[in-house]
Amino acid sequence: MQQFINPSFDEWNILTERPTASYEDLEPLVAEVFEAVKKEGDQAVRKYTAQFDKVALEEVRVGAQAINNAEKLVPEALKAAIQQAKVNIESFHKAQDYKMQQLETQKGVVCWQEKKPIEKVGLYIPGGSAPLFSTILMLAIPAQIAGCKEIILCTPPTQEGTVPPVVLYTAQLCGVEKIYTIGGIQAIAAMALGTATIPKVYKIFGPGNQYVTVAKQWATRYQVSIDMPAGPSELLVAADATANPAFIAADLLSQAEHGPDSQVLFVTTHRSFLSEVTAALEEQLNALPRKEIAAQALKNSKAFYFETNQQAIDFINAYGPEHYIVCVENEALYLEQVRNAGSVFVGNFTPESAGDYASGTNHTLPTNGYAKHYSGVNLDSFRKAITFQKISKEGIQLLGNTIELMAEAEGLQAHKNAVRIRLNTLENEI
Amino acid sequence: MQQFINPSFDEWNILTERPTASYEDLEPLVAEVFEAVKKEGDQAVRKYTAQFDKVALEEVRVGAQAINNAEKLVPEALKAAIQQAKVNIESFHKAQDYKMQQLETQKGVVCWQEKKPIEKVGLYIPGGSAPLFSTILMLAIPAQIAGCKEIILCTPPTQEGTVPPVVLYTAQLCGVEKIYTIGGIQAIAAMALGTATIPKVYKIFGPGNQYVTVAKQWATRYQVSIDMPAGPSELLVAADATANPAFIAADLLSQAEHGPDSQVLFVTTHRSFLSEVTAALEEQLNALPRKEIAAQALKNSKAFYFETNQQAIDFINAYGPEHYIVCVENEALYLEQVRNAGSVFVGNFTPESAGDYASGTNHTLPTNGYAKHYSGVNLDSFRKAITFQKISKEGIQLLGNTIELMAEAEGLQAHKNAVRIRLNTLENEI
Repeated sequence: MQQFINPSFDEWNILTERPTASYEDLEPLVAEVFEAVKKEGDQAVRKYTAQFDKVALEEVRVGAQAINNAEKLVPEALKAAIQQAKVNIESFHKAQDYKMQQLETQKGVVCWQEKKPIEKVGLYIPGGSAPLFSTILMLAIPAQIAGCKEIILCTPPTQEGTVPPVVLYTAQLCGVEKIYTIGGIQAIAAMALGTATIPKVYKIFGPGNQYVTVAKQWATRYQVSIDMPAGPSELLVAADATANPAFIAADLLSQAEHGPDSQVLFVTTHRSFLSEVTAALEEQLNALPRKEIAAQALKNSKAFYFETNQQAIDFINAYGPEHYIVCVENEALYLEQVRNAGSVFVGNFTPESAGDYASGTNHTLPTNGYAKHYSGVNLDSFRKAITFQKISKEGIQLLGNTIELMAEAEGLQAHKNAVRIRLNTLENEI
Repeated sequence: MQQFINPSFDEWNILTERPTASYEDLEPLVAEVFEAVKKEGDQAVRKYTAQFDKVALEEVRVGAQAINNAEKLVPEALKAAIQQAKVNIESFHKAQDYKMQQLETQKGVVCWQEKKPIEKVGLYIPGGSAPLFSTILMLAIPAQIAGCKEIILCTPPTQEGTVPPVVLYTAQLCGVEKIYTIGGIQAIAAMALGTATIPKVYKIFGPGNQYVTVAKQWATRYQVSIDMPAGPSELLVAADATANPAFIAADLLSQAEHGPDSQVLFVTTHRSFLSEVTAALEEQLNALPRKEIAAQALKNSKAFYFETNQQAIDFINAYGPEHYIVCVENEALYLEQVRNAGSVFVGNFTPESAGDYASGTNHTLPTNGYAKHYSGVNLDSFRKAITFQKISKEGIQLLGNTIELMAEAEGLQAHKNAVRIRLNTLENEI
């Protein structure tokens, strides 16, 4: 890790910068696949699956038999773990369901807001070296709680053209009924546009590689929305003398193993930790199966010493980390002042991996500084807020003149008339 | 209005379609302006203001004197109206502030969510024939309640290079301190990228013409987010025999006067209203100053008769109107089944213009079918949700094994290690 001692405020802009990978050069390919899927539907989806995944799909949709068989193929202990995680994720996301009361903003004017499910949502689960079934928990559980009617899932085929049993098991456990063995740009295009087999959805969720990222952005041209723009995963650990350097190293490595572009930051007010954590990193790194990936991520990583808590806190907010571990004596100070972060892990016994899998919080979180203006996935990601108002005769008589004056000042006479015609009727009633 | 009697379900797709205007041909111009603002900053902003608005700006930012003078120039009655609207909008948006309690998802695992303000937001207020000061109320009030630290406002200059007093007055009343006399693509680019004078913001809000719409979409390439994609305004009125045809006509016209591309729909289960509302429209139309605009909008508008309430309701949900007026006897049935809409106006004395100005609800709402997956602007539009978790020693001992099993199954050994190292420490403590 590169080390920085009390970097001055002027340098923060550069120090909090992420390496920006521009994927604009992928847009022509993405546009091509979208056009093909629009024109040829399932046929195009199969064609690109053959081309990109080297798999000749017989069926795009996973059949009931494969789904039912999956349960038998997943070890009992893993199933129990997935179920425990599900209970926690479920209770945390259910607790986000707040119902606003009706409010009489003034006499006779009653306003309220209701949250309604997005009826059709698509979940994208990446393939790759290992099946990322935990992301299904993070997306399908809040979708179910929200009440989304149609929840579909796309995931790239294995080399045998199948979907790993643990993915099928988790999807079924979370109530996902339609699972499609497709990935990449063609999967996003299919969900955005719809084909004979794959239903068009209103919103697409889930992580993916740069092709998926660009395809999700492209999908927004077709009146589809997305959970958030994706980027390489990030962790920032803040620690003072009360922290444990070996734990910190383990947490930093858990982020570094994701990929060579993972962002790993360490911020401390305890100067000797710069070397102690570095030593612990070296010790632990060698035992990792993914040590080459982790080592590469660590090369681009940064460790900071700040003299005061306030400097450390301000720097962390300027960065806005996706994951933020806080191991300090004055926890209250650090927590009060969290302004920009995706998910925060408090204390020496709260590793990031707890939130990645099973504490209950969501692991689909804003990266790349988006924590400054984006929420991680939560119950409301699967709902929209609709407002209502009901005005009584007395209400419009009390509020009418205000509306008329404002409409007139904006030059909108018909807006004024809609009030005037009602007020006239009421005056004639008397 | 074109009339449709009991259209069959097969036709709904076409009948609920909006005329799609593609603005892709504007992208090269938008890209050019963004590039210029990125390179030349304020100089480019001035250049494009001269080019597009035909105004040579001396100062980009409105000075304190102009702002302070504004109050004297706005009629007292209009100021009182704006203040009353402000009180209602404030109380409705404050009522949306829900604080989630901490939740122990399982013993020793405490999770919670906090909403934090987006620190820097930019509001765009269109110019044009009349100053749309009401939109300032709708954007600046929730921004203030959310606690956004920097709230800036851009609005195009009048031909004299100034900003209308009512805009300055309303902005100041709502706590907006920085007001810039710039509009169009260059305003959006300046807020997205920042210049020497205009601060870069994290999120841009507000309506605008097609240039602004494309520029807002383009801004998302620069890690800025936007409130929602914009489209022509829409109103759907649902009515049975208990409604008042003259009121309905007045409401439809209040939407139609916005622009020739306004979407106006009328749905009824009371067949004779098709002709009665048409007659009322003709009668009221001629008295309007904007009658040519309204007449053109009405040409593309549609009126529907459905035999049953359920058909009417299903059709309305298939359309997903921005504004939705419900004047029916069985109100409960219609309200229960609202699935897709921006804002709903209930009963004969709740005109859309009440919500446009003063009832308390927001008027920045999803159009073009986006109500199926987008909320209108609300308090949370100016905040993001951050999750927190704190796990005790006992908590990690109870949950640790679950995390280890799941991490291992995903091939992420370092994720597992971050738990194992803590469990080992605790085992050694005993």
